[in-house]
Amino acid sequence: MTRAEMLAWAYLSRVVEPPCAELAALVQSDGPVEAAARIRSGAVGQALRKRSEARRDIDCGAADLDILARLGGRLVVPGEDEWPDAAFTAPVNADPDKREWLAPLALWAVGPVQLADVTWRSCAIVGTRASTGYGDRVTADIATGLVERDMAVVSGAAYGIDGAAHRAVLASDGVTVAVLAGGIDVPYPSGHSALLNRIATQGLVVSEYPPGLRPARHRFLTRNRIVAALGAATVVVEAGLRSGAASTAAWAEALNRPVCAVPGPVTSSSSNGCHALIRAGATLVTRAQEVVELAGRIGEYADEAPRPTSVLDGLTEREALVFEALPGRGARSVEQLAVAAGLPPVQVLGPLATLELAGLVTRSDGRWKLARPVGR
Amino acid sequence: MTRAEMLAWAYLSRVVEPPCAELAALVQSDGPVEAAARIRSGAVGQALRKRSEARRDIDCGAADLDILARLGGRLVVPGEDEWPDAAFTAPVNADPDKREWLAPLALWAVGPVQLADVTWRSCAIVGTRASTGYGDRVTADIATGLVERDMAVVSGAAYGIDGAAHRAVLASDGVTVAVLAGGIDVPYPSGHSALLNRIATQGLVVSEYPPGLRPARHRFLTRNRIVAALGAATVVVEAGLRSGAASTAAWAEALNRPVCAVPGPVTSSSSNGCHALIRAGATLVTRAQEVVELAGRIGEYADEAPRPTSVLDGLTEREALVFEALPGRGARSVEQLAVAAGLPPVQVLGPLATLELAGLVTRSDGRWKLARPVGR
Repeated sequence: MTRAEMLAWAYLSRVVEPPCAELAALVQSDGPVEAAARIRSGAVGQALRKRSEARRDIDCGAADLDILARLGGRLVVPGEDEWPDAAFTAPVNADPDKREWLAPLALWAVGPVQLADVTWRSCAIVGTRASTGYGDRVTADIATGLVERDMAVVSGAAYGIDGAAHRAVLASDGVTVAVLAGGIDVPYPSGHSALLNRIATQGLVVSEYPPGLRPARHRFLTRNRIVAALGAATVVVEAGLRSGAASTAAWAEALNRPVCAVPGPVTSSSSNGCHALIRAGATLVTRAQEVVELAGRIGEYADEAPRPTSVLDGLTEREALVFEALPGRGARSVEQLAVAAGLPPVQVLGPLATLELAGLVTRSDGRWKLARPVGR
Repeated sequence: MTRAEMLAWAYLSRVVEPPCAELAALVQSDGPVEAAARIRSGAVGQALRKRSEARRDIDCGAADLDILARLGGRLVVPGEDEWPDAAFTAPVNADPDKREWLAPLALWAVGPVQLADVTWRSCAIVGTRASTGYGDRVTADIATGLVERDMAVVSGAAYGIDGAAHRAVLASDGVTVAVLAGGIDVPYPSGHSALLNRIATQGLVVSEYPPGLRPARHRFLTRNRIVAALGAATVVVEAGLRSGAASTAAWAEALNRPVCAVPGPVTSSSSNGCHALIRAGATLVTRAQEVVELAGRIGEYADEAPRPTSVLDGLTEREALVFEALPGRGARSVEQLAVAAGLPPVQVLGPLATLELAGLVTRSDGRWKLARPVGR
């Protein structure tokens, strides 16, 4: 990405309040630099001119990028390796009655985890800020169980269920992603500053909003669509009847992703929303394994997109077996791979060498892992 | 019913362990007296001869009827007004994978309530003997709510959820039916002797087993089919994964009746069975109203059976409106009927007089009620 492109993305992510279909279409057709120039000069359609009018003269892209650099962050934009294409592609046969999905324009990101890796195998866990001890415990149980099954956990960093989910993942050295409803330099809620710092250090903090922007009510709802999109499934652990978690669940449904809800006592108002979701068709789940069974189906959606010819197509059967035996994240010993591939250890070494030469796997401390995740 | 028929039914209900398709077919074709005579003399098919061999010489029908008379009870048999035909008729398009439904041959009954009236508008509430305080409270809430909505509650008189359901109904002067897995003169569990006495005084205690017979494990499972059949829907409040309540739910499903389950904490083993039922397709319910919405659909099943021409067919539109405004059980004032029928009170009086002359409604203390329930 050139400096001009970065500045253009920064400008574009502030000039219009997302999501904006007209802006997405313009960037798609003209590219970010030209799109930014046209908006700046007012040479765009009436709808977009109106939506960009108030902010088109604000150009703090350079300052925003400085803030991002100080945080050690980066811009994640379409076309780059880190952009989670499959996660952000709306279902082809979308029900017209469902809400219209629009991918974020670009994401401001801070953290060592690559976004595209996360969305490969992940789950959103959301719920009420007013969680009970029961809800917190079940959240921690499920989040920990997901980490054990190599799943990342996406949430919104709010008090209550969100926080319990992030904390449980960090405690078990898993990968967690916080999607903010304001700038990534604006810790919100402020009581979660330390938690957000830890997520930015171990996992990933992302936002479609430029630095400095404060969260606002409509931004939480808009943000929820990204939480849903980054999860292969969405789990609502506790929610009142009018909870923001219901909006995340609705987005998951609009994206044809499984919606799961955890039941609780019918006497608990914190579980009312979950029961309403289940009555409306969400799947009742009681533990991580049941979530994984549903989330695992995300592969079906990936399959709907045209698949590029892959270097994998050239592998021998045994090489493919060994490659498939490698987990999405994390390393394995030759012995472990042999067990997973169902081959004697000696038959694993040759394929590993080939795969290493092909740049598909890497070795570290005698253990093997994927060079980078692929959408297999 | 003649004395000879009563003795025959008594003999038949003991001679073969129910349910028995061969016996049902024989009684259907030959009537109870001839069927009893043929079994006694061994002049029946091989299967039935084998099943009746051990008990065919036991004839304590007269003694059984004496016990029944001492309890103030009666035999309820097919063809009589009290026999709940619609409830005991298996669905026409039964799924061959579902368990085969067989109506009881006859029922031994004690209590002032007429069985056919109960099954007109009723619900089974069942659950684990090892209920929690939460389960007991929710059971009482739902049972009370069902009574408020003019529903009868059917259960199995066991400790735990069953007992909580019966007690809550009695406490709110509703109608409750206990279906026993042994003779109606054998209070089981013995700790529920007093409860069963109250049910027999205010509601109805029934059993397909003859007096003196002890409950046995297989009889509880067999009994569960009658609990399910007498309810327009079955609600499981708390159940472990291997609970008898699951068998009642399976029978309800086989009869195409709605199965409802109440969720609870996923950390409670007493709710595991409910969560499993919901995951398998049962409807999550949290309160009585949600149960009534489902149980109300029992009319659909009644509609599947050929309907005899009814005196109702001759009613004027206004008479029909007033008639439909009367509740299944209980009386209403003219003012209440006017509200329910959407007519001015003066327009209700004429139709009521006609309906009274037709023997369809009766008046008592200035309030009106159905002369007897009809399968409308």
